[in-house]
Amino acid sequence: MTAPLRIAIAGLGTVGGGVLKALHARGAELAERAERRLDVVAVSARDRTKERATDVSRIAWEEEAARLAHSEADVVVELIGGESGPALELIEAALANGKHVVTANKALLAHHGARLAGLAEKKGLALKFEAAAAGGIPIVKALRESLIAHGVNSVRGILNGTCNFILTNMEKTERSFVEVLTEAQALGYAEADPTLDVGGGDTAHKLALLASLAFGNAPDLDNMLVEGIENISSADIAYAQEFGYRIKLLGVARRAGDGIEQRVQPAMVRVGSPLGDVDGAFNAVAVDAGAAGPFFFEGRGAGEGPTASAVVADLVDIALGSFEPAFGKPAHTLVPLVPASPEATTSAYYLRFDVLDIPGVVAEIAGHLAEARVSIESMLQRGRNPGEPVSIVMITHETPQVAVARALKAIATSDKVVGPPRMIPMETG
Amino acid sequence: MTAPLRIAIAGLGTVGGGVLKALHARGAELAERAERRLDVVAVSARDRTKERATDVSRIAWEEEAARLAHSEADVVVELIGGESGPALELIEAALANGKHVVTANKALLAHHGARLAGLAEKKGLALKFEAAAAGGIPIVKALRESLIAHGVNSVRGILNGTCNFILTNMEKTERSFVEVLTEAQALGYAEADPTLDVGGGDTAHKLALLASLAFGNAPDLDNMLVEGIENISSADIAYAQEFGYRIKLLGVARRAGDGIEQRVQPAMVRVGSPLGDVDGAFNAVAVDAGAAGPFFFEGRGAGEGPTASAVVADLVDIALGSFEPAFGKPAHTLVPLVPASPEATTSAYYLRFDVLDIPGVVAEIAGHLAEARVSIESMLQRGRNPGEPVSIVMITHETPQVAVARALKAIATSDKVVGPPRMIPMETG
Repeated sequence: MTAPLRIAIAGLGTVGGGVLKALHARGAELAERAERRLDVVAVSARDRTKERATDVSRIAWEEEAARLAHSEADVVVELIGGESGPALELIEAALANGKHVVTANKALLAHHGARLAGLAEKKGLALKFEAAAAGGIPIVKALRESLIAHGVNSVRGILNGTCNFILTNMEKTERSFVEVLTEAQALGYAEADPTLDVGGGDTAHKLALLASLAFGNAPDLDNMLVEGIENISSADIAYAQEFGYRIKLLGVARRAGDGIEQRVQPAMVRVGSPLGDVDGAFNAVAVDAGAAGPFFFEGRGAGEGPTASAVVADLVDIALGSFEPAFGKPAHTLVPLVPASPEATTSAYYLRFDVLDIPGVVAEIAGHLAEARVSIESMLQRGRNPGEPVSIVMITHETPQVAVARALKAIATSDKVVGPPRMIPMETG
Repeated sequence: MTAPLRIAIAGLGTVGGGVLKALHARGAELAERAERRLDVVAVSARDRTKERATDVSRIAWEEEAARLAHSEADVVVELIGGESGPALELIEAALANGKHVVTANKALLAHHGARLAGLAEKKGLALKFEAAAAGGIPIVKALRESLIAHGVNSVRGILNGTCNFILTNMEKTERSFVEVLTEAQALGYAEADPTLDVGGGDTAHKLALLASLAFGNAPDLDNMLVEGIENISSADIAYAQEFGYRIKLLGVARRAGDGIEQRVQPAMVRVGSPLGDVDGAFNAVAVDAGAAGPFFFEGRGAGEGPTASAVVADLVDIALGSFEPAFGKPAHTLVPLVPASPEATTSAYYLRFDVLDIPGVVAEIAGHLAEARVSIESMLQRGRNPGEPVSIVMITHETPQVAVARALKAIATSDKVVGPPRMIPMETG
């Protein structure tokens, strides 16, 4: 048997603790699969005195994570987080010192992934990140190694468990975004500062990685529409139900014309479709892989077990010397993303207007939509409330998003319209 | 760039043709991912004069597939089929001559996989078979390389597109098994001799491979209950619908007690659950990966595009030198499967009895069930037909399959019971 793979772990939170636990509990089995032992030789974390599920007293302890790059380890596992700072310093130093890197850090990779892939490649080292997107679902490996024969047309994912938990619970309990978010925070399902999750930023990071793997461009956060779930109201969720849909925060990347469209948006997804039925804290990814057909992957997106599972799989690949370039292609071929023209983003849209219930309001809205060449498939107005606000809901035919946006801008200026109009794309499941 | 990977393909049917087409259409992109060209240098097929989608006139042609083992190829792709004969001879000779092997041949691997894995390993060669189970779904790679940290508790799959097409169409059109099978044969979705598909044998082969990858035993067809869909009646499908279920042919392998349970059986799966909603020719696999949680994978199970996608992915791994032992563990560790005790197979069961509508029949059936300690959760008898046959349907509580079988054997001897009782397990989706 080959010499043990020596592992250094920076960060012993949920994920790092889970990795230690799995390596400890299943050491013999994993050594068999890896054809060598997987030995944790050094760790670093914020609090040395903290009680941990796995005994770390006999593992070298570094106060500063950056020191792990100078340890005897063959591979450094970065679980610090943050798109720059200590995490980036550690990864750069580890690669410079000839150590493989495994990371769960989507923010960092979305910003620096292509450059770091180049550094790793130059040294013949692995840079692996299965845990960075969709938790335990092996979607990074699937896009990098499996769904490659025919090219990918689109990747669409529910990539943030916090958002999906909140949306699922808003539907089930008919409560507002703020109420459900507060509960999720109390339960530990949402961070004290939930901005990165509910604002779509975390999904954006993950989508940038999946798009890079699928389309061969460098990860790109600039050419991406990012909208969060903060403005989704109970009313929208109730209307969605009425039409047989659910609202999900989707990351969508697809070939459109000569470019790639990337967007993070709440979307209406049909109940009974694979994406529409993804509940609670689960993640899922749907891939249209051309002649290979559609694929659907579902699993837990976060938490100790799923994320540790992804990190351990990366470690075993490294132990076996079985690793591809980080994004599936040589780093120098990761070209800048060519954005799709805005006109290429088309969909049917759900529109909700809160309007004063006075004569002429529908005519005015319909007029602006007609002017922007947006045609309406169905319309719903429930109840009457003369002189007071009521909601009007419309579903459009498939139409460019820019056309709808243009119409909404005009409609928003009307003194009969109360508050900003809501626009949510309808996705096929 | 490294020298091209030289490929020999035995069998140019649907899959082989698809592989040629993909390598031809996407050669440059695949060469980038593989870091070398993928060149087909030799082929063999039954009919040299046949019109083909890809020009093979400049590729060396061998009348006998076995000759490919002596070609200049680095890797032989076996797409002949059959559990022994020319396919086995070719694979053995290829490995003996230092050539990697890619195969889609589940029957052959289910019978000889562990031994062939040993031959490959001794020579440091790849034996890869992503296309052998669930078509384009990268489930072989996922079980071999990704879901390994915590161990697998169960693998359950819809693994035969023909069966799923037939069952889906029986439900949609309310026609009999024979009618739908005949139509499927006319459409090319079922073979002229459909036994291997509808009898469950094909699912058994695939299940043996997935179980081996999941549990680390040698593929084992002996310790497996195999039941096909030939006896599923329109009545069973209608009752399933009534209870909110669909009937699917499932391959199930799971840890039970100290052993592994393997069974291929039609099962009731809840409508709205992931497995219950797998339609038509799709395949799907649900994996319970312990602390990593449940996973669900869905995609096309057969056909040119999906299967070629799996073969090409294997070829790129080989081109990169990135391959694990065939079943994820060294061949000598693939121990014989320890079968679970029959008592460990428990489920709730759907039971249907066709009985003469005469007094005392329910009491007699209930008596036999009580004697075998099978308790009934619900019962359904629709309509009356004094003196003539009617159906009685029962759903049991969770109970050992052997207990139910014992009761049914006793019930079948009654002169009030017409035809054999039907027993179908209820699976959680």
